[in-house]
Amino acid sequence: MQSRLDDVEQGLSRWVGVDAPAQLGEAMRYAVLDGGKRLRPLLVLAASDAVGGLPAAALRAACAVELVHAYSLVHDDMPCMDNDVLRRGKPTVHVQFGEAQALLAGDALQALAFELLVPLRPDEAPAAANDEADIPAAVQAGLCSLLARAAGAHGMAGGQAIDLASVGLQLSEDQLRQMHRLKTGALLQGSVLMGAACGSVSESARSALSEYGAALGLAFQVVDDILDVVADSATLGKTAGKDAANDKPTYVSLMGLAGARAYADSLAAQAQAALARSGLADTRALSALADQVIRRSH
Amino acid sequence: MQSRLDDVEQGLSRWVGVDAPAQLGEAMRYAVLDGGKRLRPLLVLAASDAVGGLPAAALRAACAVELVHAYSLVHDDMPCMDNDVLRRGKPTVHVQFGEAQALLAGDALQALAFELLVPLRPDEAPAAANDEADIPAAVQAGLCSLLARAAGAHGMAGGQAIDLASVGLQLSEDQLRQMHRLKTGALLQGSVLMGAACGSVSESARSALSEYGAALGLAFQVVDDILDVVADSATLGKTAGKDAANDKPTYVSLMGLAGARAYADSLAAQAQAALARSGLADTRALSALADQVIRRSH
Repeated sequence: MQSRLDDVEQGLSRWVGVDAPAQLGEAMRYAVLDGGKRLRPLLVLAASDAVGGLPAAALRAACAVELVHAYSLVHDDMPCMDNDVLRRGKPTVHVQFGEAQALLAGDALQALAFELLVPLRPDEAPAAANDEADIPAAVQAGLCSLLARAAGAHGMAGGQAIDLASVGLQLSEDQLRQMHRLKTGALLQGSVLMGAACGSVSESARSALSEYGAALGLAFQVVDDILDVVADSATLGKTAGKDAANDKPTYVSLMGLAGARAYADSLAAQAQAALARSGLADTRALSALADQVIRRSH
Repeated sequence: MQSRLDDVEQGLSRWVGVDAPAQLGEAMRYAVLDGGKRLRPLLVLAASDAVGGLPAAALRAACAVELVHAYSLVHDDMPCMDNDVLRRGKPTVHVQFGEAQALLAGDALQALAFELLVPLRPDEAPAAANDEADIPAAVQAGLCSLLARAAGAHGMAGGQAIDLASVGLQLSEDQLRQMHRLKTGALLQGSVLMGAACGSVSESARSALSEYGAALGLAFQVVDDILDVVADSATLGKTAGKDAANDKPTYVSLMGLAGARAYADSLAAQAQAALARSGLADTRALSALADQVIRRSH
């Protein structure tokens, strides 16, 4: 897994904010590099490996998903949203670069995510960048489709809108699940599906991977809610206790700490069962990532 | 041209903010529908017609470009950027829906732009949406590539970053041109190139269309600077005199009003000359759009 992480860091460092004008490139790199668990990229790469996907496509998809995640954090931290000053142990982007630059950096990161998925054709690209431009157009278009749908109004942005509308409200478990299915789940599940789209896969295997991604996405959020209560800001690298302070509904407020822990465990078991059902030869990396989501301390 | 405008309005109305959760869909539709000159969509459609492009691809590209334009206005109007309260004669999105919702609506509009370019395959889509899903994957990927590059750090967002860094500074004509080439030019030129990418076109015709788009994009900005000085807010549908009030460098501050007008005319002539050089059979619609850019009153 360490070598895959290195690939992702190198890809991000090579592609993000290079030659961007004024302070924009600096703000983009600050938002993305040198931090983050890279869970989403690792999911893309593990799913692609499980289906024999194209490595060049998978690396681009892995970095693209991380850019969408990173942009959402930049915008989420802004004063008009969560107004947070600490992220990954560093001042948030708007604290470091100002709000206008943070807004633009987030916007540019989203555009860059899609740019990465559609490499220039060899006849358009500078010579040095040519080696990975032979990804089939159908794979490129499929990846764009999955990412756009995971990021947009029926995915991540939609979940954030529900979140915004829910502050101070009592949500049912169903409503809470629907919010998180979109807000964090769509991009995590999308990561798995994008990895699968880098290769060819039977419909039943794709469906099993989709279930794996959905269960893992929800488990991730439940653990997030638990950590917000039990961990301190130094361990989290972001402000702890924020949900309660903002009167946000969480799995802990709904189920209690023990109930939330049991729910996370059952979701992890669902994810593992889906992998077992997939019929894919080697799902060890995906399995390890599901374990990691449950056991993480930050 | 009116029937093309109707197609664009219908496409936008069909695709934007439908079934989006909470207030997000409403904010997205408010930002996009019932307003705007639709210059970029008309450029896409006219360029596509000139090269015999696929109508279904061109309509999606036209709407996608407009969504990127609309999202940039929503974010640009926010308090941390231009802090503007009036747009197309209506309160701006953050005034109407709050800053957080405006931020999210802009983000979701950008994602939707890419989503439109990559329609679901017939086997994925609900039955009613199938008729336009047979756009070749290479066209889909090509359109995503052009749009991402026009919108991102080396296009529109990059130009906005230069703009941000330039307030109160004395720019040379070269620096001002470079800023606008990115800030407004990249998306206008990108519209023309996306239209051309809906069909097949010789390299020399593509290059001529690219020059047409570059000249038209710059002319548009020069006229914008002129209108900011000579028109009133009611005619513009947005706050007039903003550039001078914000101490922003403009073509009028650099060249004077008469100089800026002469420059706009020479750019329009460049655009027409590029069309004449293109060798394309029918460029009347593109020619009319260049005229419209110069003669517009708002």
